[in-house]
Amino acid sequence: MSVYTTVSHDQMQEWLKRYTLGQLLDLQGIASGITNTNYFVTTTHGRYVLTLFEALKLQELPYYLTLMSHLARHGVACPAPVADNTDQFASMLAGKPACLVSCLDGADVAQPTPAQCRAVGEMLAQMHIAGATFPGKMANPRGPRWWSETARQVHPHMDEDSAALLREEVQFQDSHRFDHLPSGVIHADLFRDNVLLNGDRIAGFIDFYYACNDILLYDLAIAVNDWARNDEHNIDDERAAALLSGYQSERKLTSEEKKAWPLMLRAAALRFWVSRLQDMYFPMSGEMTYTKDPGVFQAVLKRHRLQQHHWL
Amino acid sequence: MSVYTTVSHDQMQEWLKRYTLGQLLDLQGIASGITNTNYFVTTTHGRYVLTLFEALKLQELPYYLTLMSHLARHGVACPAPVADNTDQFASMLAGKPACLVSCLDGADVAQPTPAQCRAVGEMLAQMHIAGATFPGKMANPRGPRWWSETARQVHPHMDEDSAALLREEVQFQDSHRFDHLPSGVIHADLFRDNVLLNGDRIAGFIDFYYACNDILLYDLAIAVNDWARNDEHNIDDERAAALLSGYQSERKLTSEEKKAWPLMLRAAALRFWVSRLQDMYFPMSGEMTYTKDPGVFQAVLKRHRLQQHHWL
Repeated sequence: MSVYTTVSHDQMQEWLKRYTLGQLLDLQGIASGITNTNYFVTTTHGRYVLTLFEALKLQELPYYLTLMSHLARHGVACPAPVADNTDQFASMLAGKPACLVSCLDGADVAQPTPAQCRAVGEMLAQMHIAGATFPGKMANPRGPRWWSETARQVHPHMDEDSAALLREEVQFQDSHRFDHLPSGVIHADLFRDNVLLNGDRIAGFIDFYYACNDILLYDLAIAVNDWARNDEHNIDDERAAALLSGYQSERKLTSEEKKAWPLMLRAAALRFWVSRLQDMYFPMSGEMTYTKDPGVFQAVLKRHRLQQHHWL
Repeated sequence: MSVYTTVSHDQMQEWLKRYTLGQLLDLQGIASGITNTNYFVTTTHGRYVLTLFEALKLQELPYYLTLMSHLARHGVACPAPVADNTDQFASMLAGKPACLVSCLDGADVAQPTPAQCRAVGEMLAQMHIAGATFPGKMANPRGPRWWSETARQVHPHMDEDSAALLREEVQFQDSHRFDHLPSGVIHADLFRDNVLLNGDRIAGFIDFYYACNDILLYDLAIAVNDWARNDEHNIDDERAAALLSGYQSERKLTSEEKKAWPLMLRAAALRFWVSRLQDMYFPMSGEMTYTKDPGVFQAVLKRHRLQQHHWL
């Protein structure tokens, strides 16, 4: 379903001359992924993943690809981009910006165990630590300014109660500042479908194309809101505690972070509620997304507004 | 036999805090390698090789380790060094400069097949191509100046015929200049024990601690003199042709390189004949080397001086 751009064996063989990866043996489209086109590329050197970017521009890629390269070089489990003979990670192929990354051996997990949540927390902390020496900078394009504006756009389409809740939460978040909390490189989209697992071992975090510089605790809240969420949109205590304990085994939260934690869980829920509302009411023309239910994060947000304990 | 420096589990656990590699699971000394101490290090992230450098100094390591990192990033099969939280590849452990690199899955091969020689040639060419964008520089410490000086030191210890041959060859090489040939990063020691293979696939080139900037063709001659050499110190035509054809499938030799090839084979034989003579007559005190027979490369040199065809 997701090979939007077709690459022929001959085209690939020609493009591979940019690299020192040996001869092309096999080229297989990958039937997952929503935004980009992906192929498995097998050469005499090994197996790689080719990504053709359907929306990002060539000049936007270096931040993400040098970040992944930096993290992989520090032993954080993620795909390592391969540099070509001009020392670039990306160039045009079939009219699209394209890159090759190393192939990881795991699969995503729909129903994670507490042990898997713990491993995700550990690796996320390690990503935050390794990111500290990354020199690139990228402001979060989906921060408070974005959600305030987007909330105004979607309000007229919402029922009264939901619109009131959204307005109230945006105001509440606007009245709090988190600038004093530790910040750095965050993944910003560490949902279950963006982590490959091999049993309890993290094979790799993937899809870094929302990565940016922001509050570390916010990244943790995004992860907990997805990894610990059960089918009834409740946060499962055991999985949340496991993810947090894994995280803290590598990076202890400060007392200020602990104080901000309940608010951060709400901010993380708000961000995805708003983006899903936007996708539903203002679908991008020509973009092949399947719309996800905004109600999930509305429910999560409601629970966080009531919840008294937060597994810390 | 080659764990000269002992590292305890506790020491390793403490040192690993410099890295984002998770928790230490296992630490095993490796019983191969002559110059340095190596351990297999298994953490929750995976398996790595720890090297403790017995001779090289901490400040000498960046050239070699950033080179390996550069090559690995370009898809050349070699160990990828892991950077620590200060973004360094090496630091002190148990009183020795130490680094961690990714663990490769192959083994060295004593009797290579032509197909394996071909794969070595291909990967060597790819290493030369990928090395073109590496910014580091290192003069060859074992170039013509070194072998001329060393030859003078060993002459008095040699029998008359051998001494005459050595003197003649040094003079002959001195009368030829290769500065016009393509140069770049070379491995400079690509013997059979420095390549891990997995069937016919190169798992990785290892032991880059003679790597330097020099004539590319010289690197190729060093490889042919070892990979194609049979037990009678003759160069096997089939293996030599396979290695050269693999190399040329990735990088075509220029006509000037082809012209220089017979001389380069002699230069490569001379270099290892001289270093083995040095090791035999002037063993470094305290260095744990097992002396290799200089006669092997004396024989190879003699054959090259007579040989008319050189598989090109």
